[in-house]
Amino acid sequence: MTEFKKDELLYERAKKVLPGGASRNQVLRQPHPVYAAYANGSYLTDVNGKQYIDFSANIGSLIHGHAHPKIIEAAYEQMKKGTAYMVATEVEVEYAEYMINRIKSFDKIRFLNSGTEAVMHMTKVARAFTGRSKIIKCEGAYHGTYDVIEVSQKPNPSNWGDKRRPNSIPHTPGVPKGVLDSVIIIPYNDLENTLEILEENKDDLACVIIDPMPHRINMLPASKEYVNAIYNWTRKNGTLFCFDEVITFRAHYSGMQQCYDIQPDLTSLGKIIGGGFPIGAFGGRDDIMEVLDPICNYYKYPLSGTFSANPVSLVAGLTAMKLFDQNAVSELNALTDKSRSMINEAIKIAQVPISISGDGSVFRLHFSDKVPIDYRENYYNELNQKEAIKRFVDYIYDHGIICVNSLAFFLNTTMTDKEITILADTLLDAFKEVKPYIK
Amino acid sequence: MTEFKKDELLYERAKKVLPGGASRNQVLRQPHPVYAAYANGSYLTDVNGKQYIDFSANIGSLIHGHAHPKIIEAAYEQMKKGTAYMVATEVEVEYAEYMINRIKSFDKIRFLNSGTEAVMHMTKVARAFTGRSKIIKCEGAYHGTYDVIEVSQKPNPSNWGDKRRPNSIPHTPGVPKGVLDSVIIIPYNDLENTLEILEENKDDLACVIIDPMPHRINMLPASKEYVNAIYNWTRKNGTLFCFDEVITFRAHYSGMQQCYDIQPDLTSLGKIIGGGFPIGAFGGRDDIMEVLDPICNYYKYPLSGTFSANPVSLVAGLTAMKLFDQNAVSELNALTDKSRSMINEAIKIAQVPISISGDGSVFRLHFSDKVPIDYRENYYNELNQKEAIKRFVDYIYDHGIICVNSLAFFLNTTMTDKEITILADTLLDAFKEVKPYIK
Repeated sequence: MTEFKKDELLYERAKKVLPGGASRNQVLRQPHPVYAAYANGSYLTDVNGKQYIDFSANIGSLIHGHAHPKIIEAAYEQMKKGTAYMVATEVEVEYAEYMINRIKSFDKIRFLNSGTEAVMHMTKVARAFTGRSKIIKCEGAYHGTYDVIEVSQKPNPSNWGDKRRPNSIPHTPGVPKGVLDSVIIIPYNDLENTLEILEENKDDLACVIIDPMPHRINMLPASKEYVNAIYNWTRKNGTLFCFDEVITFRAHYSGMQQCYDIQPDLTSLGKIIGGGFPIGAFGGRDDIMEVLDPICNYYKYPLSGTFSANPVSLVAGLTAMKLFDQNAVSELNALTDKSRSMINEAIKIAQVPISISGDGSVFRLHFSDKVPIDYRENYYNELNQKEAIKRFVDYIYDHGIICVNSLAFFLNTTMTDKEITILADTLLDAFKEVKPYIK
Repeated sequence: MTEFKKDELLYERAKKVLPGGASRNQVLRQPHPVYAAYANGSYLTDVNGKQYIDFSANIGSLIHGHAHPKIIEAAYEQMKKGTAYMVATEVEVEYAEYMINRIKSFDKIRFLNSGTEAVMHMTKVARAFTGRSKIIKCEGAYHGTYDVIEVSQKPNPSNWGDKRRPNSIPHTPGVPKGVLDSVIIIPYNDLENTLEILEENKDDLACVIIDPMPHRINMLPASKEYVNAIYNWTRKNGTLFCFDEVITFRAHYSGMQQCYDIQPDLTSLGKIIGGGFPIGAFGGRDDIMEVLDPICNYYKYPLSGTFSANPVSLVAGLTAMKLFDQNAVSELNALTDKSRSMINEAIKIAQVPISISGDGSVFRLHFSDKVPIDYRENYYNELNQKEAIKRFVDYIYDHGIICVNSLAFFLNTTMTDKEITILADTLLDAFKEVKPYIK
């Protein structure tokens, strides 16, 4: 008789009660997901006792790895006093003050439960403040699961249209036409066409939303020229310029925005600012954030939320952010730079057409000589190299490395030379293994 | 010199960094919010050392009160093993199995981070499954902060139009006209007009969404006749019937839906199912939930989420639900019935025109002889009685009782005769106090 492993049995049960047998598409793997038993720092052990080094950091959200003792103890101390109240807390004030000190563009901040909620409310607040209904986003950019911001998240050659004037494509069936009409799509980092599209839509444009280093497009930072030009255009046209830094905030002490000469009007955050617990937030200019203030004359945007600003997420998040100080950021980024160098070396040794993008403590591999310049190049590249990418991810999982399926690797502050050396060695072996499958 | 109390000082700081000085509108009070120091069971102590009995249960989400030791210890045991992974967990399977056993209408379930996310994805899945873009909701019903479902959450006499054919009113400025056009509004519990509106819109209707006991309208359960008629109409017209039970699930072992002869196609959940931690979920018919399954032929709805199904919320939630078994539900509902009787007695003694609605472990007071029959009657009643309601809420806060501003009271399983007696006594005094202000 066949002996089933624990994860196989769990997946058989899971398929009966969860669509696709999983709670999140990211965890799906063939023939079944990995099931976590426990994790600590950079190491995760599954239900069969197999150990992995975790470079997913739960899609970048665990800046100090799993179960950091200082974060867990702080959260536990709070939990014993209550996990959520319908009254205010001291920590919401303290954490807000901390973030406003840390991020120059923040006058005020509002806490929510997820990155999806953060981007949704940032978008809706931009509409409420300007009284305008259209927004602009980049083709292929992921900003969470609000249907407006999902438009053209994953278009394909059959529907995406002219590269210079991308179509607005619904991400799921049944999206009202009026939603599609309210979302204008620009080609990322393409200044000339972006400015032309902005001009064509200037009359009813609430905001331009960009992820300054969009991981699903190519994980290349937006050029300074691009960001400056959009900023200057928005100043002249009464349009807000919004950054989605849910993922990219980890890249620098004050997020990717510190790399530019301008400051976004609004920024959404999530992931690392919860210390491993559910969180989202957005913040920015005082006069815009005032639309949220029920006792001011500019009140336009009623917003509550049962778990928003719950003290467990805030205590854990504030502890995590204080530990991720300027020094910790610099050390982690230096380790990541070293890791990038080692992997570039492995690429040379294996003589494979692979390139690396990213900044700060995250990077992404591309099975291509050069990093794809936009969503469409990346789309074709992933399609052409599908077999090689699948074999690559399978190989490194088999050899005890977890990464994000997009080939993104997130480092955390508990990592040392040991983990990045194992990573580089494993990747070298993987490169050699999949080389015959790279087209 | 004036000596400032700790909460006054906190609020001064808060106003500089949070819009309106608060993270959630529900916590706002004049001259400043209450700031929690710690809470246990039904009791909450603020930063000045004042103790309250908490009948808000964080908008109904704490079914076992604050910091229930079994829930906290279970969550702590999980946290030490990690708070969130990019791989699957055993508890997501176990909790899904548990809920599918508990709720007859659930074949499959998907976990999310908040009630807002739950209703948003339920709505979008209904659109994806049917390929239709319009939805129907009740005037004045609150279903979270997704802009589609926010339409006509709080219309007023200047814009709401004909009572029999309510207008679709945006909740915040800048909502695209195409969003408004996709949301049709029905008058709650008004069968004749509801059926006429359904007929008028039958060609492109993805779903009808109702809260079977909408707290912001009147907290009166939908009539069986109303629910049956909508259900029968949807069967004939290819439209899904969706329940929002984020709040009402607490009312009975399987939610309010167990009180009806029919089963909703999809149901959204939140609040109590997280054991005090952030959560949302929706579930229902197998063939509909299949649109979420990436490896099936009907896949139409890609959905991930960094913190969705995080094991801390699931472990805490499953522990809370197991403690809230059939017996615990019956005992809590009996205590709440007793509390309702005591308050009805207080109403008689004080000779005030106050009525009570609700079911299970929640009730709501109305400053009116009879419970308002719909949103508009409730709107005028709250407007007319504004002064009395404000004085009433201030009085009971001053005397150590926390309730929801809508005058909703949520009981929890740690309450006993002691707490409901204090409540009834305090309410009797409050009724007498505000009687002169009731119009």
